[in-house]
Amino acid sequence: EAPPSPPALEQPTISCLVCFDSVGTIQKSSRTLCSTVCGHVFCSTCIDAVVRQKKQCPVCRKKLTKKQYHPLFI
Amino acid sequence: EAPPSPPALEQPTISCLVCFDSVGTIQKSSRTLCSTVCGHVFCSTCIDAVVRQKKQCPVCRKKLTKKQYHPLFI
Ligand SMILES: [Zn+2]
Ligand SMILES: [Zn+2]
Ligand SMILES: [Zn+2]
Ligand SMILES: [Zn+2]
Repeated sequence: EAPPSPPALEQPTISCLVCFDSVGTIQKSSRTLCSTVCGHVFCSTCIDAVVRQKKQCPVCRKKLTKKQYHPLFI
Repeated sequence: EAPPSPPALEQPTISCLVCFDSVGTIQKSSRTLCSTVCGHVFCSTCIDAVVRQKKQCPVCRKKLTKKQYHPLFI
């Protein structure tokens, strides 16, 4: 017989990968949740600063311009 | 005195906007969660079909090509 399946992770925790604020905290403080085209998620304040300063994704180091991230509607 | 704040929505439910499968169901069935550059979220099976067929976002009707969506790592 197969062993029991592990419990499914139904809802991952979503938070900014720079400041670690949760999506609830982000939305309550008038920021928006954003995704880069490399698929990493940040709050608008942190990704704006990253694109002005380091110009690369803090997670995977892909080059980032203003055209390479967008709001995420979840 | 200010009225009590409404309870915060800490974690929204994330699911494909075409088939409505949750992120857990998507991941268990070897699909990936994807976002369009217009910020709408789908499973890889549904967005692949949309880009082949209708070529526009099912939510906001923005024109979609293969370059206008990406995996979302959450
Ligand atoms: Zn942040
Ligand atoms: Zn990245
Ligand atoms: Zn789907
Ligand atoms: Zn859209």
